[in-house]
Amino acid sequence: MTHDTTPTQPATTPAPSAAAAPAPPGGPAASATAAGGAGTRLDPWFGSYAARAHGMRASEIRALFAVANRPEVVSLAGGMPFIEGLPLDVIGEAVQRLIATKGTTALQYGSGQGDEELRERILEIVALEGITDAHPDDVVVTTGSQQGLDLVTRIFVDPGDVVLAEAPSYVGALGVFRSYEAQVQHVPLDADGLVPEALERAIVQARSAGQRVKFLYTIPNYHNPAGVTLSLERRQRVLEICKRHGVLIIEDNPYGLLGFDREPLPALRAFDDEGVVYLGSFSKTFAPGYRVGWVIAPHAVREKLVLASESSILSPSNASQMAITTYLATCDWRGQIKAYREMYRERRDAMVGALSEHLPSASWNVPDGGFYVWVRLPDGLDARSMLPRAVTERVAYVPGTAFFYDGQGADHMRLSFCYPTPERIREGVRRLASVVNSEADLVRLFGTHAEPDDDPRDAEHPSPNLA
Amino acid sequence: MTHDTTPTQPATTPAPSAAAAPAPPGGPAASATAAGGAGTRLDPWFGSYAARAHGMRASEIRALFAVANRPEVVSLAGGMPFIEGLPLDVIGEAVQRLIATKGTTALQYGSGQGDEELRERILEIVALEGITDAHPDDVVVTTGSQQGLDLVTRIFVDPGDVVLAEAPSYVGALGVFRSYEAQVQHVPLDADGLVPEALERAIVQARSAGQRVKFLYTIPNYHNPAGVTLSLERRQRVLEICKRHGVLIIEDNPYGLLGFDREPLPALRAFDDEGVVYLGSFSKTFAPGYRVGWVIAPHAVREKLVLASESSILSPSNASQMAITTYLATCDWRGQIKAYREMYRERRDAMVGALSEHLPSASWNVPDGGFYVWVRLPDGLDARSMLPRAVTERVAYVPGTAFFYDGQGADHMRLSFCYPTPERIREGVRRLASVVNSEADLVRLFGTHAEPDDDPRDAEHPSPNLA
Repeated sequence: MTHDTTPTQPATTPAPSAAAAPAPPGGPAASATAAGGAGTRLDPWFGSYAARAHGMRASEIRALFAVANRPEVVSLAGGMPFIEGLPLDVIGEAVQRLIATKGTTALQYGSGQGDEELRERILEIVALEGITDAHPDDVVVTTGSQQGLDLVTRIFVDPGDVVLAEAPSYVGALGVFRSYEAQVQHVPLDADGLVPEALERAIVQARSAGQRVKFLYTIPNYHNPAGVTLSLERRQRVLEICKRHGVLIIEDNPYGLLGFDREPLPALRAFDDEGVVYLGSFSKTFAPGYRVGWVIAPHAVREKLVLASESSILSPSNASQMAITTYLATCDWRGQIKAYREMYRERRDAMVGALSEHLPSASWNVPDGGFYVWVRLPDGLDARSMLPRAVTERVAYVPGTAFFYDGQGADHMRLSFCYPTPERIREGVRRLASVVNSEADLVRLFGTHAEPDDDPRDAEHPSPNLA
Repeated sequence: MTHDTTPTQPATTPAPSAAAAPAPPGGPAASATAAGGAGTRLDPWFGSYAARAHGMRASEIRALFAVANRPEVVSLAGGMPFIEGLPLDVIGEAVQRLIATKGTTALQYGSGQGDEELRERILEIVALEGITDAHPDDVVVTTGSQQGLDLVTRIFVDPGDVVLAEAPSYVGALGVFRSYEAQVQHVPLDADGLVPEALERAIVQARSAGQRVKFLYTIPNYHNPAGVTLSLERRQRVLEICKRHGVLIIEDNPYGLLGFDREPLPALRAFDDEGVVYLGSFSKTFAPGYRVGWVIAPHAVREKLVLASESSILSPSNASQMAITTYLATCDWRGQIKAYREMYRERRDAMVGALSEHLPSASWNVPDGGFYVWVRLPDGLDARSMLPRAVTERVAYVPGTAFFYDGQGADHMRLSFCYPTPERIREGVRRLASVVNSEADLVRLFGTHAEPDDDPRDAEHPSPNLA
């Protein structure tokens, strides 16, 4: 957990010499703080950081993922879609025509809210999940839906405010909430998604304790990491509870169109245009490399989101937005999503098949969409402390602790089936099973060897490797 | 200043009905606040926003710029580069080859720190301004240098912290500082840039008052909006003062390569790798539509910037970064910058020539690089209250108030010569002169008719129109 373990450290960065180092920064008060700090020698600005930056440090997991990206490792860790499935030649030609004919727009600054033609296209997409009453002016285009999460949190969360989130929840969202110094209150989920009674209890308890509950963050479809989907009946109940208690809902829906067995359920936003802020993304259904997502929000919220986005990036990339508009206009995107669904279903089957064969001592759900299987390890095993060994055995996963705000989750791991081929998935699970089984042998012989890690500061920050 | 004046309001957004509106959000305390607020009827979430969002509202100027973007208006307002000067056919073909051959990387998630090949290319660019000791690992690629500003402020500034900035300073930076609830302390500049004695006085005074001074934000080259350049001798003194007082320097340098008459001066970062965080951008020398900028920062700062960026957007766009790398590798980018310098010099000449001819009652600097002329109006005129009239006369500018944190600047306006052709610039200045001269007649007849606007909440947020 020192600077030396980070993968990105330059071998050639000169250590700051004492003679060249500036005076302790931040004024007299900060100097006093910095003087005794271990960070002072490494970082002359140690005493200057904002409170929100104190928890920002690279974790051991980040260093491991730098290794896990090597080709000999089967990574069941990341949420990268299988780009090889896209018609790259066709996309390349379309983008060439775009730049040649509309380059003076594509390469220029754009609107802070996002390109209007793209916002119209986005409405066609969300209509597939029942959102039919939105106007292009309700849409804010973002630099991936991660930026949507960041902006929503920025405009709503003061330090100490409560954010409700499923247990487990998306690592990248937890990182954002932490960076704005929110208190995350986890709400249990089961096979039908978020448990409404537990949600209401959490709201009432937080309010009774004098806490401000700012919003519920939920992933209703093919949950990351739990793989479950909120049932239709529960959607109504969650909406009713949140409306009754005046709690805004942040609906994060990157996977909704990637169901294997059925048509999508209506989005929460389809039932309520004032109580729900909806986050969408092209990263899982098309390509993450353009970094384009969107937010659909009630009027006043949307207005603040645009101002916050302009403060953060001035405007989303016109080149990226117009490339996506061109893709949607010239390629069979509905057919592409259908092809992705079939491909991911095959990979899901490969993964659960291999788990049944090689890891019967674990348990897991069988997701009917999305990218993830959430695996509970045999008793006594710790997914976090096992990870270095797994990477040594050339397989990677994300330990369950990444998906909790409070250090829970060491008994789980998230396995992604989106990126490797079915053959590689089977090989990865075989390798993983051999690690798990020999760890289980050790536990049987010597007892649990790792303390559960409950220091929330050690939980993960968002990272492309964990998307 | 009501919602009705914003250009982006949808005509069809239904007003929330009282029956459908959720209960007042944010818990009992917030409900009490919201109950009496005028915003409640318009915005059911009025009581839920974070403190930092309270000042976020669209200004009158934004509404005017929506009009100013119409083709019949000569806009001397924006900082948009003249994209028509780029070899769009060549760029289109290069991007087509990129997607066809490297599409599985370009369209995928990338590194949070940015593409390594691009970071190497960036070092070639900054070497032109004397930064020769940086390593690719010192570079963080950002979504425009606006994101660099946002991230630096995010990791350093707690509410109430002091940020030092020139008087005037870049509107987009002031907006970021405001959004993190910083106190901006302006430091005077003159024809040689920031005044070192005034800088030292500001540091000492703030510290004496018990304030935490987090950094100096400075634009040393072809300042936005003042057009001036920090002299070589003053660069040394500013560095010395900041080092002695332990104040970090944020050096924002989008225009450094766009000088008309001489080779660039060495960057502040060229003299000090521990005390300076350097912000660079492709937006002015190539194209803003890809939204790619960069930060060069000391090791520990850079590490936090990467974590903050991942929290904000996961990773910068691979497609954008690789398009720029391809441009740098296949096009004569040095020749392109030289062509831009000549083109912008011609436009500068057109602007100052037209000002001399039509507006002799005003005064201005003659910038030797960059995009902007900073014009002082005849006594008694108010650039902010004059803007609606100017837009009616089909010419737009940015009132000086946008470039101050504290309501100063109504006696100035920023004129940009980057985007319109010389002929349009001359026509724009002619129209502007007719507005100024008839306003001056009114002032002579009736006295100053507008109160200076000193409500800092009315100052501008960053916007693509003001870049």
